Amino acid sequence: MSEELGVTTKMKDNFSKWYLEVVRKGNFIDQRSPVKGCDVITPWGYAIWEKIRDVFDCQIKKNNVKNAYFPLLIPERFLKKEEEHFAGFKAETLMATEVGGEKLEEKLAIRPTSETIMYYMYALWIRSYKDLPLLINQWNNIVRWDTKVTKPFIRGREFLWQEGHTAHATKEDAEKWVETTLKMYNAAYDALALDKLLLKRPKFDTFAGADYSAVFDTVTQDDKIVQGPGTHMLGQNFSKPFDVKFLDKNGKKQYVWQTSWGMSTRQIGILIMHHGDDKGAVLPPAVAPQQVVIVPILFKGKEKIVLNKADEVKNNLEKIGIRVFLDNRNYSAGFKFNEWELKGVPLRIEIGPKDVEGKEITYARRLDGKKGKIKLSELKKVRELLDNIQKEMHEKSKKFTKGSIQTVSSMNELKNVKAVARTNWCGSSECHDNIKFESKGFEIRGTLYEKEERPFGHCIHCGKDAKHVVYLARAY
Amino acid sequence: MSEELGVTTKMKDNFSKWYLEVVRKGNFIDQRSPVKGCDVITPWGYAIWEKIRDVFDCQIKKNNVKNAYFPLLIPERFLKKEEEHFAGFKAETLMATEVGGEKLEEKLAIRPTSETIMYYMYALWIRSYKDLPLLINQWNNIVRWDTKVTKPFIRGREFLWQEGHTAHATKEDAEKWVETTLKMYNAAYDALALDKLLLKRPKFDTFAGADYSAVFDTVTQDDKIVQGPGTHMLGQNFSKPFDVKFLDKNGKKQYVWQTSWGMSTRQIGILIMHHGDDKGAVLPPAVAPQQVVIVPILFKGKEKIVLNKADEVKNNLEKIGIRVFLDNRNYSAGFKFNEWELKGVPLRIEIGPKDVEGKEITYARRLDGKKGKIKLSELKKVRELLDNIQKEMHEKSKKFTKGSIQTVSSMNELKNVKAVARTNWCGSSECHDNIKFESKGFEIRGTLYEKEERPFGHCIHCGKDAKHVVYLARAY
Repeated sequence: MSEELGVTTKMKDNFSKWYLEVVRKGNFIDQRSPVKGCDVITPWGYAIWEKIRDVFDCQIKKNNVKNAYFPLLIPERFLKKEEEHFAGFKAETLMATEVGGEKLEEKLAIRPTSETIMYYMYALWIRSYKDLPLLINQWNNIVRWDTKVTKPFIRGREFLWQEGHTAHATKEDAEKWVETTLKMYNAAYDALALDKLLLKRPKFDTFAGADYSAVFDTVTQDDKIVQGPGTHMLGQNFSKPFDVKFLDKNGKKQYVWQTSWGMSTRQIGILIMHHGDDKGAVLPPAVAPQQVVIVPILFKGKEKIVLNKADEVKNNLEKIGIRVFLDNRNYSAGFKFNEWELKGVPLRIEIGPKDVEGKEITYARRLDGKKGKIKLSELKKVRELLDNIQKEMHEKSKKFTKGSIQTVSSMNELKNVKAVARTNWCGSSECHDNIKFESKGFEIRGTLYEKEERPFGHCIHCGKDAKHVVYLARAY
Repeated sequence: MSEELGVTTKMKDNFSKWYLEVVRKGNFIDQRSPVKGCDVITPWGYAIWEKIRDVFDCQIKKNNVKNAYFPLLIPERFLKKEEEHFAGFKAETLMATEVGGEKLEEKLAIRPTSETIMYYMYALWIRSYKDLPLLINQWNNIVRWDTKVTKPFIRGREFLWQEGHTAHATKEDAEKWVETTLKMYNAAYDALALDKLLLKRPKFDTFAGADYSAVFDTVTQDDKIVQGPGTHMLGQNFSKPFDVKFLDKNGKKQYVWQTSWGMSTRQIGILIMHHGDDKGAVLPPAVAPQQVVIVPILFKGKEKIVLNKADEVKNNLEKIGIRVFLDNRNYSAGFKFNEWELKGVPLRIEIGPKDVEGKEITYARRLDGKKGKIKLSELKKVRELLDNIQKEMHEKSKKFTKGSIQTVSSMNELKNVKAVARTNWCGSSECHDNIKFESKGFEIRGTLYEKEERPFGHCIHCGKDAKHVVYLARAY
């Protein structure tokens, strides 16, 4: 798997090229799969996904959600049951039609999402209010045959995700559950050291079949926005066509209220785009497959004492629960430094003959290259170092996101916005289309989810009364 | 999700009906999915799969295998590259052919297994002997459009599994790796408390494209055999058509030697068929999602003191790392006993007012119904109890398997064999077909993998010289 190492493109020269170099050379993903847009998630990328999954699965279990597995294949007629939903997914749903040269009796959709097949089962499972809430999650693979240009992790034709699907007795219960999922995603975003704009999408950009969607939007270093996890309030839009009813406490049949919510392998791309630098990825310790890499610095005649010490340090760090890799491969130290910086390991520890003598180790933080020394007798300070990196990365992310938002009142001002604009909008989709066209790509991403903001002026485009304060950006 | 509880069919009256009742009423799986043979793995079944996965993933990581993810969709021409492989999978491979009403340029197979797509990538990744061995595993979903009658977990059109795929510099290295995988599966079978016959399959029953296969066969309580995990020695059968070459130490190009190995959700069915009894499933503690269920025995006026104590016991058991569920639902104790016996929880703890007074708890083992008492001050004995159950289940399994094998020398004797026959075979597939026909279903499953047995007579069918001592059984 050898290849020229190190990222040669500077982020600010060509962000897209920089990103492709990082994911490819850092062995996060391989795009050379024979089916375009269906990339191979290579071990380093997959190991990050495992960490993200572990963090979120902990939330799943803490909140009494049960994991389950539903079929990959969905009869076409199911998708058609909820009109808006079908309209939204029709164009990108891949269909299986034959086996062993024979036509299937019915075309089968490869799941673009699982609302329809899951709710068919929910209709069989739910009888009375005692069965509610029903809280189920799946970890699975999804296929959406996007015709747009694909981008590893960010936009692909197959991806991995979790999809949670719940059923509740009342609208209020479902809305309360939306809040719970947002707390769960907040916990994941803490681990990812990512800030976000938590937005309520405008109706025209809501998930097909949802009443409203609450979505985590994150600003990337090329001044765009990328959508992370999100929760959809489905209301009774699916329970009616799928006949998911329950007997309430008064013996009356009612349709359930539902939510669905997902987070995918796109998260790995968001991590890299948000935290990366010219040397490659920068991973937050909480989701780094290796939190520490030890690179022994070898001089002739001193190899054994250095390697023994490195081994001892590795074992001691493992004992205090740190994920550590001792890189004793037969490569130069410089080569190793480059590789682990590219892969984004948060902390490098160097051990050379002088360190052994001085009973200490030298460390370098991936975040900013800062170096320091730690006494071998105080190795538990490594934990502190990692905790600090995690905190600092999160703070940096918050500062960056805050600094990316500019409040504007006119189309002219909008032209000078770098990343995210905050402005007033009348609510018409015509205005939105015009804004997007005239600003060369600024889309309305939505309104703040957590608090309704009062408009501070007229609609930025038509000048009529504004209904909402909205956030706009160019988006992935 | 309420339904009539308790298994009504006796295992010995109708094993198949008993099994279907257990998996359905115990909420392991739901067959009522709209696509036949693509069952829904419900939360209890999935939780068992998570435990099996955790146990085996530990082995994956211990043995330096890396997890990764390869695309679900495989170009049809890939499958065709290895002739035998294609012939073996052609009839049951589902093809995706259209999207949004338009035909795809090329038909895409939904993976029936991933050799072909993985080895295409291996050819890109492997350059020199330094890249070997390459040890990669995937946890994913598989579709095989079997036309036979389906059976939940045991034979379905979609299942979950792990598939490991390795590449080695020499035949010896690959063969050594086969041994490593068998040790990994042994560790999984320890956790499952399952014995097995480790057999080398005869050539006509080997995985399509393999030189030989080593497979874990397990005897079920209806005297059949069911195949569990297995490892295939692929030799250079795939590396040649897929051009997976490396530069050896002498600078010479060589084809790699390969293995593939898998274990699936079928394991859940094997567990139930092997360990179950008339009351339902019996789960070994190592893979039980809940190892202990606490059922409070409530009497009027004493509810609070019992529930408080139950809560305290739960917390104390959790502290010593035991997976415990406190069932304080508003159902009768008898209803709860039935439900948890059906689901197979290894240990039930009852706490009633007398137990609180006596500062003790009452326990009942799922394995044999044996009851006993433990002082609250000695709760850590629960760990011992669970360890003993695990051991006893494994011992029982070994005894059962050993007792299932009968050595026979004639077709007449074969007729009286209950489960597994051990006999002599000349090696011809004609004899095999005749044996199977005349014995009404006894198939040759293979020879012992771990030691070559010397024939002790002539071929059971043709009477000519025997080449192998083989094991025969009716199989799932």
